[in-house]
Amino acid sequence: MPTLLAISPELEPVQAHLAAGMALVEKRMQQQLTSDLPPVQRLCRHVERYHGKMIRPALAMLSALASATDDSSVTLNREPDERVIVISTVCEMVHLATLVHDDVLDDADTRRRTQTVNSLRGNEAAVILGDYLFSAAFGLCSTLGDQRTSQRIAEVGMVLCAGELLQLDHREDFSLDEPTYFEIVKRKTASLIAAACELGSRQGARSASAAAGGAMTGEAPAAAALLERFGTSLGIAFQIQDDLLDLTGDQQVVGKSLGKDLEKGKLTLPIIHHLATAGGERRGRTLELLHNHAMDSAQRSELLRRWMTETDSINHARRVAESLVTDAREALQPIPDSPAKRVLLLMADAVVNRNW
Amino acid sequence: MPTLLAISPELEPVQAHLAAGMALVEKRMQQQLTSDLPPVQRLCRHVERYHGKMIRPALAMLSALASATDDSSVTLNREPDERVIVISTVCEMVHLATLVHDDVLDDADTRRRTQTVNSLRGNEAAVILGDYLFSAAFGLCSTLGDQRTSQRIAEVGMVLCAGELLQLDHREDFSLDEPTYFEIVKRKTASLIAAACELGSRQGARSASAAAGGAMTGEAPAAAALLERFGTSLGIAFQIQDDLLDLTGDQQVVGKSLGKDLEKGKLTLPIIHHLATAGGERRGRTLELLHNHAMDSAQRSELLRRWMTETDSINHARRVAESLVTDAREALQPIPDSPAKRVLLLMADAVVNRNW
Repeated sequence: MPTLLAISPELEPVQAHLAAGMALVEKRMQQQLTSDLPPVQRLCRHVERYHGKMIRPALAMLSALASATDDSSVTLNREPDERVIVISTVCEMVHLATLVHDDVLDDADTRRRTQTVNSLRGNEAAVILGDYLFSAAFGLCSTLGDQRTSQRIAEVGMVLCAGELLQLDHREDFSLDEPTYFEIVKRKTASLIAAACELGSRQGARSASAAAGGAMTGEAPAAAALLERFGTSLGIAFQIQDDLLDLTGDQQVVGKSLGKDLEKGKLTLPIIHHLATAGGERRGRTLELLHNHAMDSAQRSELLRRWMTETDSINHARRVAESLVTDAREALQPIPDSPAKRVLLLMADAVVNRNW
Repeated sequence: MPTLLAISPELEPVQAHLAAGMALVEKRMQQQLTSDLPPVQRLCRHVERYHGKMIRPALAMLSALASATDDSSVTLNREPDERVIVISTVCEMVHLATLVHDDVLDDADTRRRTQTVNSLRGNEAAVILGDYLFSAAFGLCSTLGDQRTSQRIAEVGMVLCAGELLQLDHREDFSLDEPTYFEIVKRKTASLIAAACELGSRQGARSASAAAGGAMTGEAPAAAALLERFGTSLGIAFQIQDDLLDLTGDQQVVGKSLGKDLEKGKLTLPIIHHLATAGGERRGRTLELLHNHAMDSAQRSELLRRWMTETDSINHARRVAESLVTDAREALQPIPDSPAKRVLLLMADAVVNRNW
């Protein structure tokens, strides 16, 4: 697995804290996904190999650290907080569930360099396994005994499905505009990333306050709202970068099937920009190309890439993503400086600079 | 919708209570499945038409009434309890989610005389809509603020998926034995029915105790455990009857695509019995028939029905279902007589006598 960040020595304690937390998240997930039935157990072990960037757990843990009101060196030296680990694991499990179902919808063969469940065991197993993961995630979340968190996670599940359904409704809709595109992406991708940041922050503030012997407030701490904004902007930027990689990435580096967006009639930001700015004849030829399902997908991507360069559409999408990262960074401004906050800011930059 | 029961006049107050409760369940579900996005809203409205027998809400409400420790006439005259309505709605929504996904797995076209989501909008919409329903169900459940109930519902989600995965693992396994069949059915069907009875009972006891100004006990009341046993036996019997209808039913009366079990390589109790008891030559011919995917499904069912009559396999399955209904009735013996209990017993009989 490539590392997301090149960390400077001063931030190494945060990295060590994150590494310890990730190991706990993996352990927790394995515990939650245990079955007495061998065929179920085999599928659970398989899906764990999907672990990749673990962006959501990392964001939840960093948000927790950045929101802890006690001295951050104390927080860093403590074992990662149990409730933060739970919420991190829940977010990753919801994400895994959507990945398993996405691969069914996309007919994808490869995910994180591993055969997808659908290609290995069929669509049926993949549909049911996704449901199993959703249920396991909700079950784990309810162990927190925190009604608001449970409702928030369920709400995110609904919002991300609504985003996917909206996207489906606009499949092969070559007049899709940018506002609708952003509505889709905000829901289907940014909602869970924002929730990971917000819920991580809330738990971090809560456990810091508990450790200091303070009373827990029922109100959302201000940090949680800021981190939610951070996560929303970052999540949209993240999806735009994913869209760019689907068009321009190297499958070996990205580690999953590429070119799926066009194949499935999903219009992404560079294409939307290209269709909106290309002149009459070129626009017509692009539409012809998009309608031509017989054409080899690599050849089609190659042609599109060339045409989109002419309209500067790839750069347009990159600029939008970068500007969203700036928004994300600005959202965190009121939060006091800390090593964890610095790593969050580095992560924000890394999201649009990754090639995997 | 056919009515499940012919109710005697003395039980009419229970029926009226149930009817009022059902209306509240439908309203609650509609509230929970509201979206600001028109394509999502359309799908939600469509799936509500799947409402059929509403067995799970009925069982939850009756279990609540039968477990209320106050005078049952008082309970009957009260509005159906809000928490019982919530748990009834949650169970029905989880059930709807599994139906939507089952129809994808089964390639089914018709459900409750309505076109299935997959046949109308494609498998992709159906997969995502199922996830939406699961999330909505968990979200509604968490409004109860009762950690144990939330965990129980999530656990049921996992158990029923595990049952489906076990079934999938035994697809086209013509040596499937009865114990494994019962293991599958107990998980994939009986688990949710049992949970509806158990959680309904728990909420009923809780709200009766609250109405009487009594303290709520953290412990499971004895009635909840009995109703869970009742639901487990009834649930298995229910599935056997469903299996029988898939083989011998009238599609017009049942209201959904039939013959799907054989088409999908699912072995059900009558077939398992037939393969275990048929002599060598007849067994060989049956296996040939089951392997013959080219044969018209109606013709295949017709031949199988005839052969299974010779080995008395249809009657064997009926007898097993009836004996499970007897077990279910016996589970309720320690519960004091009440109109609600009498309706539960009538429902148990109706499960194996229905032809729809």
